Amino acid sequence: MKLLYPNSISIDVKSLEGFSVSLHQYDTRSDIPEEHTDAEMLVTWSNPVSQLKVEAKRLKNLRWIQSLAAGPNDVLSAGFDASKVTICTGSGLHDHTVAEHTLGLLLNAARRFFEMRDFQLEGKWPGHLGGPQPDRPSGKFTTLQDANILVWGFGNIAKTLTPWLTALGANVKGLARHSGVRQGTEVYSEDKLSELLPNTDALVMILPGDESTKNALNAERLKLLPKHAWIVNVGRGTSIDDKALVSALEKGEIGGAALDVFVTEPLPGDSPYWKTPNTIVSPHAAGGRPQNPETLIAYNLRRFLAGQQLKNVI
Amino acid sequence: MKLLYPNSISIDVKSLEGFSVSLHQYDTRSDIPEEHTDAEMLVTWSNPVSQLKVEAKRLKNLRWIQSLAAGPNDVLSAGFDASKVTICTGSGLHDHTVAEHTLGLLLNAARRFFEMRDFQLEGKWPGHLGGPQPDRPSGKFTTLQDANILVWGFGNIAKTLTPWLTALGANVKGLARHSGVRQGTEVYSEDKLSELLPNTDALVMILPGDESTKNALNAERLKLLPKHAWIVNVGRGTSIDDKALVSALEKGEIGGAALDVFVTEPLPGDSPYWKTPNTIVSPHAAGGRPQNPETLIAYNLRRFLAGQQLKNVI
Repeated sequence: MKLLYPNSISIDVKSLEGFSVSLHQYDTRSDIPEEHTDAEMLVTWSNPVSQLKVEAKRLKNLRWIQSLAAGPNDVLSAGFDASKVTICTGSGLHDHTVAEHTLGLLLNAARRFFEMRDFQLEGKWPGHLGGPQPDRPSGKFTTLQDANILVWGFGNIAKTLTPWLTALGANVKGLARHSGVRQGTEVYSEDKLSELLPNTDALVMILPGDESTKNALNAERLKLLPKHAWIVNVGRGTSIDDKALVSALEKGEIGGAALDVFVTEPLPGDSPYWKTPNTIVSPHAAGGRPQNPETLIAYNLRRFLAGQQLKNVI
Repeated sequence: MKLLYPNSISIDVKSLEGFSVSLHQYDTRSDIPEEHTDAEMLVTWSNPVSQLKVEAKRLKNLRWIQSLAAGPNDVLSAGFDASKVTICTGSGLHDHTVAEHTLGLLLNAARRFFEMRDFQLEGKWPGHLGGPQPDRPSGKFTTLQDANILVWGFGNIAKTLTPWLTALGANVKGLARHSGVRQGTEVYSEDKLSELLPNTDALVMILPGDESTKNALNAERLKLLPKHAWIVNVGRGTSIDDKALVSALEKGEIGGAALDVFVTEPLPGDSPYWKTPNTIVSPHAAGGRPQNPETLIAYNLRRFLAGQQLKNVI
C-alpha cells in the first residue's frame, strides 16, 4: 500500500510511520511520477486543480483522498470517481487560525481600524474615533462587549471562536441546520433566521460552499438586519448575494462587511467591493495553514487500514 | 456637603443618592456657577485643563476630586492644592475597553489588516497575505498562538487582557515594579527587562505617564527586541523614545508599532509616525468611555464621608 503526501506543506513524516504503508512525497506542481500512480492513498494541500484533474485520471487504484483544506471543493471539481474514492476534508485543522482571523475582523470592524488607516494614509488624526466616546451606544457596533453575535454555520471553527467572544463580553448565538446546545451555546435551526437577524449586531458566516448555501444571505435577509449590523464572512464567497450586499453597503442599509472570501479569488479589479463604504477586503487569509495535519492523517490512515469509518468524510 | 458631577458623561445620579450630600451637575465647558464654588467634592471627566485651572483657584473648600480618567495627569497639571485635596483616578473603569482595543491592535499587527487596507485602497489583492501560509513561522509575528507577549505595566488592564491572550494561545509574561504571580501570570521586576526582551514577539506597554516611565522604551532596549517584534502602546506616549522608535521602524530593526497614545495629541501633521513603515496610528481610542462610574463614585463617596481610605488615591 502506498500513500502520497504533498511537498506544499511541511509534514513530519515520522508521525505517519509504523503502518504497513510506504510513504512518498510528491510535487504538487508537476505530474506524479509514473511509478507512484498505483498509490491507494493521496494527501492533498493547495494542489492546482489542473494537477488534480490530471491525477484523477491517472491514479487508477486510488481509494482515499485526505485533503488538508477545510472544504472539498477543489478535490470534487477535479473529477475523482466518488464511487471508488473516499474523500476526507481537513475540517478541524483550520479552527484556531480561522477563528483568530474572524475575531480580528470583528475587532477591526468594531474599533474601525480600517477607517483609522484611511486617515493615517492622509496624515490626518481621526479625532471622531478617539477621545471621550459613548460607552456601548445602542444602534452602533463599537465593541464586542454586550454585542449580539450570530454565528451562521456552527461547526468546529464556531466552537473555537465562541468562548473567545464570550470572554470579551459578547452574547453569542448559533445558527445551523440542526438546533441544540453546543458547548453551552444555543444553536438555532435556520427557520429561526428571520427572528434572529433583527437582533444581531454582527453576523459571522462560516458556511460551506455547496449548492444549499448559495446566496444564503440575500436581499430579503439583509433587510432584516439592523442598519448598524456588520457581516463577517470567512466561509465561502458563494454564500452571499454580492449584488444585494453591495447595494446595502452603498445605501448605508448595513453597518459594514468584512469579507475574507469571494466568489472569484483573487477579487477582480472591477469588483465593487474594493470601494463600497465600510467594507474590509481580506485576501482569503483566515486559514491557509493546516495545524498538526499529521494527527488527522495518521488517525484516518489507521482507520482506513482497519476498514473503519474515516473522519471528515464528505 | 456638596458633590459636583460633570455633564460630559451620562451618570445615573440615582446610584449616588442616599448620602447626606447634595448632588449638582456642572457643565465642563464653562465656569462652575458661583453658588456651587463651596463644593467639597468634584467628579471630573474630560474637563478642559483650562477649566480645571480656573476651578483650582475658585473651589476653596474642595477636599476630594474623583477623576474618571485612568490617569491623573490633567487634574495634576491644573494646580489643585495637593495638601488639601485628595485626588482619585478612575483606574479600573477603563480595563475592559482598553484591553479590547489592545487585543484588536495585536491582531491588526499579526494579521496585517493595515497592510490589507493599503492594498484595498489601491484596488489590489494582497496575495502574499492570503492563500497557503506557513503555520507559526519562527522569526515572524503572524498569530497570537504560541506568541510570547510581554505586558509592561501589569495593573488592572493587563489582568483583563491576559486571560484573552492566553485563551488565544499566547504565552504572556508581565513586567512591573514588583515581581510576583498575578492571576496566574508571572510578573517580573523591571531589572529582568534585558533578559525578557530578546524573547518577545509583541511588547504591550500600559505604563502610566509619570517621570519614572519617561522614555522607558529607549534605543538600547529597542535593540534587545527581535527584529520581528511589535510594540503596542496603550499607556502614555511619553514612555517611548520617539526618535529611537522611528529610527528602528525606518531601518526595519523592529517588526512594527501600533500606537494609541502620543506625546502630543492629536499627533502633529509633521510627525514621522504617519509614514514610518509597519506603523499603526490609533487616535487615543482604546479607552475614553468609563464603565459604571457610579459604582466607584458611590464607593469612594461613602468612604470619604466615613473618613476612610479612598480607592485609587494617587
